[in-house]
Amino acid sequence: MPYYGYFNGTIQPVEQIGVGVTDLALLRGFGLFDYFLTYNGRPFQWDGYWERFANSARRMTLQLPIGKDEVYAILMDLIRRSGQPDVAFRFLLTGGYAPDSISIVQPNFIILTEPIHNVPDEQYEEGIRVMVDDYVREMAEVKTTDYKRVILLAGAMRKANASDILYQKDGEISELSRSNFFIVKGNQLITPNQHILYGITRRVVIDLARPDFSVDERAVMLTDLQDADEAFTTSSTKQVLPIVQVDDLIIGDGKPGPISRELLSRFRALTKKW
Amino acid sequence: MPYYGYFNGTIQPVEQIGVGVTDLALLRGFGLFDYFLTYNGRPFQWDGYWERFANSARRMTLQLPIGKDEVYAILMDLIRRSGQPDVAFRFLLTGGYAPDSISIVQPNFIILTEPIHNVPDEQYEEGIRVMVDDYVREMAEVKTTDYKRVILLAGAMRKANASDILYQKDGEISELSRSNFFIVKGNQLITPNQHILYGITRRVVIDLARPDFSVDERAVMLTDLQDADEAFTTSSTKQVLPIVQVDDLIIGDGKPGPISRELLSRFRALTKKW
Repeated sequence: MPYYGYFNGTIQPVEQIGVGVTDLALLRGFGLFDYFLTYNGRPFQWDGYWERFANSARRMTLQLPIGKDEVYAILMDLIRRSGQPDVAFRFLLTGGYAPDSISIVQPNFIILTEPIHNVPDEQYEEGIRVMVDDYVREMAEVKTTDYKRVILLAGAMRKANASDILYQKDGEISELSRSNFFIVKGNQLITPNQHILYGITRRVVIDLARPDFSVDERAVMLTDLQDADEAFTTSSTKQVLPIVQVDDLIIGDGKPGPISRELLSRFRALTKKW
Repeated sequence: MPYYGYFNGTIQPVEQIGVGVTDLALLRGFGLFDYFLTYNGRPFQWDGYWERFANSARRMTLQLPIGKDEVYAILMDLIRRSGQPDVAFRFLLTGGYAPDSISIVQPNFIILTEPIHNVPDEQYEEGIRVMVDDYVREMAEVKTTDYKRVILLAGAMRKANASDILYQKDGEISELSRSNFFIVKGNQLITPNQHILYGITRRVVIDLARPDFSVDERAVMLTDLQDADEAFTTSSTKQVLPIVQVDDLIIGDGKPGPISRELLSRFRALTKKW
């Protein structure tokens, strides 16, 4: 069965959706998105994702053409048409068609249904390696479509046998290319609190950890990695994914640690009963 | 008559060109472009524009799907179909359709024919005001599609009665949002030489000036504006456009100066016999 998408009021198979070439996302990189999964046929953390999407739109001066409840009904329709128990959804809100290639007139709003790309089991069992890049995303707290940097580093990543990029600037870590970053020291979780996209999964994991671990949201330095016991990254698809190596530095004993495993297990328990 | 465009081998009216929604320019802001005009039915400075476009493609790790001569033949076809003596061309090269929303497989190449939007005469006669923004474009020397910043400032510009944005960082001026920047002191032109898109018009104007003026390509500071006699900006559509005010600072005597006028006149003489 094909996956369907919504585009300004009509629903059609994703591969048939075409965006006019004068759209400002194409000509000027002016667009934002969001991305989330369903569990048990229901959009996971829907309230949080919608709120973030609406915030991103405000920050980008784009008027949402449709309200929350109406969008939810479309999501339910799209799941049904996909024939899958669970799917990923991608929202895309663009600057829309511009008569002069620069001015916003009317945003285009698109919802894509996508297959869920699960992280392979062995990455959870063995943990991943990441490489450090000297970079900080512009407007990191808004989920703009600007992901040039990680695409340009695809070759370097393959060469380094790395699964992802960890951004740092002046020694301060912000985030991975598409996910948030945590370290564990003793019974404490530490995670960056600025120059980041505020992940919904990041927030959920913090809440799941609070009863038993102290959580410190603060500047995390590269030097903090040296005595970290564990590190992991969070995102809607990665859930809680252990990081065992950063460039040449082995984190802890080079294996996924007990606290990362515990938080993954709590996260999966939550999604199971969602 | 409609304007026509080329997209991966086919030619059709611009308003019928649709780009599939999984293109990386839409999903990830991964695309580059170039833009130039024809004079007397011939692409102005074609060699320079093609070279820059090919350089941008290399820097963005995108393979050009078609060669220079073949593209030139398409341009001639598109001019003919437009029914206009002169047009603007916009090249767009994107990351192409991605199966996983992040990996480059095959770039999409688009050529759009557009009407030329001339700068109103009174802007040449009176000069323009610009507002300063604390910003420097990422990968400024590559003509990526990333123009979020100027779109976000549209409201602030209207409020300030400014025609454009002048970017500076730590007191060093780089460029305007879509054009290059020059100041004039005595018989000397001074223009930034880093963190800029190396304009073809910038290069042409420097060459036109060299016989009679000294040209200094170096870091230009905001403080340099204080004793500047003139300022102007260059681009394919703006040609040589005088700037008479930067934020609250009046440049020179607040009117377009003789050297700006002289260079505009030389530029127009060159295009006339192109």
